[in-house]
Amino acid sequence: MNLLDYLPTVPDFPKPGIMFKDISPLLADHKAFAYAIEQLYDLSRGYKFDYLLGIEARGFIFATALAQATKKGLVLARKPNKLPKQVFSKAYGLEYGQDALQLQQDILPRDAKVLVIDDVLATGGTLIAAANLVEQAGGHVAGAVVLLEISDLLGSAKLTSANIQSKSLIKI
Amino acid sequence: MNLLDYLPTVPDFPKPGIMFKDISPLLADHKAFAYAIEQLYDLSRGYKFDYLLGIEARGFIFATALAQATKKGLVLARKPNKLPKQVFSKAYGLEYGQDALQLQQDILPRDAKVLVIDDVLATGGTLIAAANLVEQAGGHVAGAVVLLEISDLLGSAKLTSANIQSKSLIKI
Repeated sequence: MNLLDYLPTVPDFPKPGIMFKDISPLLADHKAFAYAIEQLYDLSRGYKFDYLLGIEARGFIFATALAQATKKGLVLARKPNKLPKQVFSKAYGLEYGQDALQLQQDILPRDAKVLVIDDVLATGGTLIAAANLVEQAGGHVAGAVVLLEISDLLGSAKLTSANIQSKSLIKI
Repeated sequence: MNLLDYLPTVPDFPKPGIMFKDISPLLADHKAFAYAIEQLYDLSRGYKFDYLLGIEARGFIFATALAQATKKGLVLARKPNKLPKQVFSKAYGLEYGQDALQLQQDILPRDAKVLVIDDVLATGGTLIAAANLVEQAGGHVAGAVVLLEISDLLGSAKLTSANIQSKSLIKI
């Protein structure tokens, strides 16, 4: 099965010049989605971790599926003002704009090992911000696993410089 | 296992007067989350459906887990300007404000039977908007399943009036 058949490119979304990879057809096809999760599960086995961190919003989908497959806890890195209680925050630049992520201050036990999950690795800014939240919370970043890496944007090298070992199921 | 132990109430979030139910502790505890999904799976078996529709953002989590359990396709109802390509839109009022949801026009096959999934049923506005999107797309709403229903807000009756049969794992 070639998963790229289920990940069409939509040019100029969300703004001109961005080649957006649409994951919707992958999710809508149960067999393709289950196959992707099986492969992501295999990638995740290279890491030691207690929790999966899903990045809002599409990262929630892959982190949830992997949390079920690995029987680990799921924690959420959310956009500002979505999580109740005290949060850690980290601003970051992304391929198309500026944003921030937050993590609840009391959700991870001290020294928790956390595998960070997202759908796409572009410049790496989002994953590095999520990893920073784990560190602010006193946890350890086990690594990062994504469905799709956009190689031209060199995010993987940027993660390595930030001492985060990343694995991608598909590289384009 | 009493799932309410994993769903603490945070008063006055996101604004004064709202008693927010925080699902984070449930997600972070694998056993509690797996138990909740098992029970939601049992509820879903009362419906005939081909697809699960997850409502952004927390609905993605429960819809993903149920899509894996039921081996059905997953489609997303997203906030405006998140989905590429042509979309159907539906504005709605919710417990704290006004918002809109969108669904890609080509993601569901004609006459698809769709079970709508969210974490919380409050006034019912969000679920009714999501159901409307399914109908705009030429699909049929099989029903709605949620983790938690806030009975005082009478959302369940509002759904019944809109001809949507809903089931909730927990009622408070």
